[in-house]
Amino acid sequence: MQVFPTAEHSRFSHSLGTYEIARYIIETVDTVKNALSEEEQVTLLCAALLHDVGHGPFSHAFELIHPIHHEEYTCKIILEDSEVNQVLKQISPDFPSKVASVINKTHPNGILSQLISSQIDADRIDYLLRDAFFTGTPYGYIDVKRLIRIMSVKDNQIVFKESGIANLENFVMGRYHMYRTVYYHPASTCYEVIVTNLINRFFELLATGYKFKGDYCLLLPFGSRKSISAAEYTDLDEYSIYYYARLMSREDDPILKDLSIRFLNRKLLKTVLVKNALEANYYKDLVIKEGYNPSYYFYSVKPNQIIYKNYGMNDKANINILMRDGSIKELSEVSAIMAALINADLSSRDDTIVIYI
Amino acid sequence: MQVFPTAEHSRFSHSLGTYEIARYIIETVDTVKNALSEEEQVTLLCAALLHDVGHGPFSHAFELIHPIHHEEYTCKIILEDSEVNQVLKQISPDFPSKVASVINKTHPNGILSQLISSQIDADRIDYLLRDAFFTGTPYGYIDVKRLIRIMSVKDNQIVFKESGIANLENFVMGRYHMYRTVYYHPASTCYEVIVTNLINRFFELLATGYKFKGDYCLLLPFGSRKSISAAEYTDLDEYSIYYYARLMSREDDPILKDLSIRFLNRKLLKTVLVKNALEANYYKDLVIKEGYNPSYYFYSVKPNQIIYKNYGMNDKANINILMRDGSIKELSEVSAIMAALINADLSSRDDTIVIYI
Amino acid sequence: MQVFPTAEHSRFSHSLGTYEIARYIIETVDTVKNALSEEEQVTLLCAALLHDVGHGPFSHAFELIHPIHHEEYTCKIILEDSEVNQVLKQISPDFPSKVASVINKTHPNGILSQLISSQIDADRIDYLLRDAFFTGTPYGYIDVKRLIRIMSVKDNQIVFKESGIANLENFVMGRYHMYRTVYYHPASTCYEVIVTNLINRFFELLATGYKFKGDYCLLLPFGSRKSISAAEYTDLDEYSIYYYARLMSREDDPILKDLSIRFLNRKLLKTVLVKNALEANYYKDLVIKEGYNPSYYFYSVKPNQIIYKNYGMNDKANINILMRDGSIKELSEVSAIMAALINADLSSRDDTIVIYI
Amino acid sequence: MQVFPTAEHSRFSHSLGTYEIARYIIETVDTVKNALSEEEQVTLLCAALLHDVGHGPFSHAFELIHPIHHEEYTCKIILEDSEVNQVLKQISPDFPSKVASVINKTHPNGILSQLISSQIDADRIDYLLRDAFFTGTPYGYIDVKRLIRIMSVKDNQIVFKESGIANLENFVMGRYHMYRTVYYHPASTCYEVIVTNLINRFFELLATGYKFKGDYCLLLPFGSRKSISAAEYTDLDEYSIYYYARLMSREDDPILKDLSIRFLNRKLLKTVLVKNALEANYYKDLVIKEGYNPSYYFYSVKPNQIIYKNYGMNDKANINILMRDGSIKELSEVSAIMAALINADLSSRDDTIVIYI
Repeated sequence: MQVFPTAEHSRFSHSLGTYEIARYIIETVDTVKNALSEEEQVTLLCAALLHDVGHGPFSHAFELIHPIHHEEYTCKIILEDSEVNQVLKQISPDFPSKVASVINKTHPNGILSQLISSQIDADRIDYLLRDAFFTGTPYGYIDVKRLIRIMSVKDNQIVFKESGIANLENFVMGRYHMYRTVYYHPASTCYEVIVTNLINRFFELLATGYKFKGDYCLLLPFGSRKSISAAEYTDLDEYSIYYYARLMSREDDPILKDLSIRFLNRKLLKTVLVKNALEANYYKDLVIKEGYNPSYYFYSVKPNQIIYKNYGMNDKANINILMRDGSIKELSEVSAIMAALINADLSSRDDTIVIYI
Repeated sequence: MQVFPTAEHSRFSHSLGTYEIARYIIETVDTVKNALSEEEQVTLLCAALLHDVGHGPFSHAFELIHPIHHEEYTCKIILEDSEVNQVLKQISPDFPSKVASVINKTHPNGILSQLISSQIDADRIDYLLRDAFFTGTPYGYIDVKRLIRIMSVKDNQIVFKESGIANLENFVMGRYHMYRTVYYHPASTCYEVIVTNLINRFFELLATGYKFKGDYCLLLPFGSRKSISAAEYTDLDEYSIYYYARLMSREDDPILKDLSIRFLNRKLLKTVLVKNALEANYYKDLVIKEGYNPSYYFYSVKPNQIIYKNYGMNDKANINILMRDGSIKELSEVSAIMAALINADLSSRDDTIVIYI
Repeated sequence: MQVFPTAEHSRFSHSLGTYEIARYIIETVDTVKNALSEEEQVTLLCAALLHDVGHGPFSHAFELIHPIHHEEYTCKIILEDSEVNQVLKQISPDFPSKVASVINKTHPNGILSQLISSQIDADRIDYLLRDAFFTGTPYGYIDVKRLIRIMSVKDNQIVFKESGIANLENFVMGRYHMYRTVYYHPASTCYEVIVTNLINRFFELLATGYKFKGDYCLLLPFGSRKSISAAEYTDLDEYSIYYYARLMSREDDPILKDLSIRFLNRKLLKTVLVKNALEANYYKDLVIKEGYNPSYYFYSVKPNQIIYKNYGMNDKANINILMRDGSIKELSEVSAIMAALINADLSSRDDTIVIYI
Repeated sequence: MQVFPTAEHSRFSHSLGTYEIARYIIETVDTVKNALSEEEQVTLLCAALLHDVGHGPFSHAFELIHPIHHEEYTCKIILEDSEVNQVLKQISPDFPSKVASVINKTHPNGILSQLISSQIDADRIDYLLRDAFFTGTPYGYIDVKRLIRIMSVKDNQIVFKESGIANLENFVMGRYHMYRTVYYHPASTCYEVIVTNLINRFFELLATGYKFKGDYCLLLPFGSRKSISAAEYTDLDEYSIYYYARLMSREDDPILKDLSIRFLNRKLLKTVLVKNALEANYYKDLVIKEGYNPSYYFYSVKPNQIIYKNYGMNDKANINILMRDGSIKELSEVSAIMAALINADLSSRDDTIVIYI
């Protein structure tokens, strides 16, 4: 949202959206509805609503620092003594564990997990649409109603009708373009690097017994790296990180101060696109020569372009096509363009993003 | 944004938008361009970008508590030793004061203020479009390009060509509907009441020497109600308020605790629409009978529907129409529907919103 | 479509759209569904699909020439031995007459006619949306899903819930603006005048025994003004009129030739807006002085602005509001802006459109 | 438009659109503006407006029947004594021939033809956007402003900046999907087959001296297959074909009668997708066995998927990329997904469309 100023939609609205997509699938696709018991339908809707509840602040950045699997925390929040847990228990004592089993993919009816976390699911559909709308890019503009209308269930798994292959291609290409133009936008990457390094620096100083002026009560538990309770975890939201960044901008440590001011005032580091690791190293050397610590002021990444995969014969994670003759094939077996996308070494021509002082 | 979950666009993107509308007016409307010197054009653009910089957190709520005029703080930030001020001074030493004079309407060329703060200006155009887009309501859907194309300058003021009266009617009606359905949505009103009362409660406790557990360093200066510096003012952003609300939810005072939890977890008070003050009092009595303090748990408001006015002969704040014969008339003199809107006692049929425990 | 080049949507797609709106109302609004027997639901859908089937080519223009009520022909086509009639009879022998009774408002269940032809119905909703989309104007941009969601049935008539008054206001204002900016666009009016006068001229010449070069076989029956069969009526579509216009451009009569060339090549007459009938007469005199026949080269019209009415106590054609207390009120009794719209003499400030050589 | 009922936008609005795209390119892209003299700019705009003026009715169908190259007729209309020619001559006597030279690609400044007919040009941009909008499919939803902003001129040819590769990929994929889902929709194909065969049948009967009841004056010249004048050509528009179809539905020849009724009343033939020519033959045999003439009642086609090509080193028709280092590369050399698209045998997996009685 620092790069696309209008892209400020929260995880909250994404959760509502994922719920609505899941609800619409059940309402519209009879084969899905019939493949789920009434309890499973409610379980699916709750899992859709809660699937991201365990995400930390600036989640990708944060996961780099604190070894937390967000799905694990999602389950923790659902299962531990939280408000969420209390509401779910009103359905039945074991309802929270049923919802959690969709998140960690152990629910006996595999269709539930497929609808929440597979290669085309309520989660991915919502965030493609949402990101496209709020960033104003045309790449994720898909015909969601038709995409859902071609869904079906066959052999106890989600399949898509052959007549809708173009919709599936469009969905995958939309994701491909969103990754390249939005998620891997150099400025977005740079902003993530700054947050990550800022918090890293804070924990570094904490570990060495640095005397901070400010009170960072909600962040401290994460520094000591012991086990974090669900409550501690949810208390530390992005608002807290912003607030702490403001306190950090008043500390004396020059790196903490500099990175926090960059974070608060959108003062990005420089970014450049290079062709390979060798060229990237040139910038690392430059950072060192200028007297900066490359742990905080240098970063390079080659965008990861794998956004769709054929996992091989009969894998549940595949995008499966229900052919007119009743057989099931994997998408790339029937779409030439998807086969091309899979087989091409997409990254071969892509640039490496370098962030440096 | 608590009521319309996708309406999370910030003041930052609104500032960029206001700038862009102002820029587009200069680019597109020759008479406006010619009525502004080159320096005035830059002045206008800077004023557009900065017009809201003095807004506090939850600004309407905050203004109720701390007697701050946000335009005054906008000027303060522009004129005092801020980063904004330093950048502006690079144009010329007196450039900040020129920008500030557009904000406080003392710039010698009245057209600049008209383009930023009149009844149809870059500010109002942007936020009508922005709110319509992000809330998903159809009410503010206006043809902005045509609205700007019918702008002109005559007798050193902004006028609109007679051929575009339908556009002006549509703009005014769009605002009318947005006020009724979004800005005065009972839940939005309720949320504002909760924030206002939460901060009020904090200051009440502070005044009585209450011992808080948390550290509220950025909020304290506002409690003592002395003069606030521009830096203190900008430091207290909405992130800080959210952070402090989390700390407040751990304090012992039951009102502070309750209101902060309501604020953090969207647990609104009840709302009801009533026909008059008498009916509203029924709910106030109820609150008292139930043992609650009505200062914190009761509120009633009759929505203010005046969104367009004829200020009388030749007033600069009027929406002026350039007739085909070259004369200038006020909008309601030439539009029957606008005359009706002005003359009708719009509020006579409107309900009073009551918020109560 | 001669003025708004993209507005080429046909009566066919409007018929599909009206059907879809009617279908969506039944699907979404339980009280409507419950107020209609299953047969009545099908009757409604067929009436929606067929409500415009009796419209002639350039219908408004054509009705001026040939004294045909298009609803009468719609019923004729439904009831006479047409393909439409045969399909409907497959439901039951008296099904065509049931469908026709919705069109001519004699069906015993008044709700059916209300949903097809009242002040807010499937027909008007579809064409407001359709015209807005295809002309690109923002005026008819309404939240159709919400407009339908606030529908209900009370006392055996369609009502709208009090909570949706803003939607109703928006709908009425949308129509008001579409009338002023699109339907009464001077160029649209001019084009209608040319078609009307072209066909009028043809019939004039026909009556005087003029020897035409071309073969106008489908148009001739209308010239003799005897009763027209449903088949003759539907055969004469707009394509035929265009084709005949091309033939007419090769006839010797100078008026027929000139008007047909104007029609084919979008060569409009001049248009001017004047304040009153006196000013209009100036142009009529000019036409005569220049030697033109004012029957063919002069026209003036004052746009008719009545697009919403309160028909008085309990009239079925009213837009009725279901109040929170269960009572029913007419829209203008509860909406100040609608009351203003009704009471204002809207046309008092409007210009007269003059078309002249 | 028989399949996508709202897709009724005419060649007229497409011509205006192509003009507007060309105009916007000149306005926005300085390098293009500077590469064109003022006269060349006007020439480009006129060529954009007129590029399709030589299209016959149901153009693709018609070209199959009458051996006409529509570009040849476009030039004929521009150069012969037409109204178009007279208007163009007002600029200068040789201006029509300059405009025509853009159409037939002989203008000395190659940039003009590149902007009207290359792989990404004003023509293709407009119809992708227009078809996407009017059919309601999401496939052609491109960011046209950005697509144009990345245009530039280098070495006297149109190039696209490396930073916009994702836009180019999106454009090419949009066309790919529109072809598959709209242009090669089985029902669209079927409709074209019916028109083609209807007119073919008419000419067959004409050649054998068949006595028609109706007067087909505008169509007859095409039957005798002699050279057609520009005036004869433009007179025969789609309205005429519709009108003649109505007359044909009253002739005695059963094939002419049947096909014309199918054409007028959207009664399509059957369509089926098969895997190869062998399977297609099954349906041809069926048609013969049922006693139908396969020339009129059978058709099979394998969709042609080549919508983008690398014409090899330095070809003007290539989509050329201006790299950050100033070099020029062909799109597929720098985009992995485009390379995949080109190298894949896209049609290998595609079905053959069969149309049969």
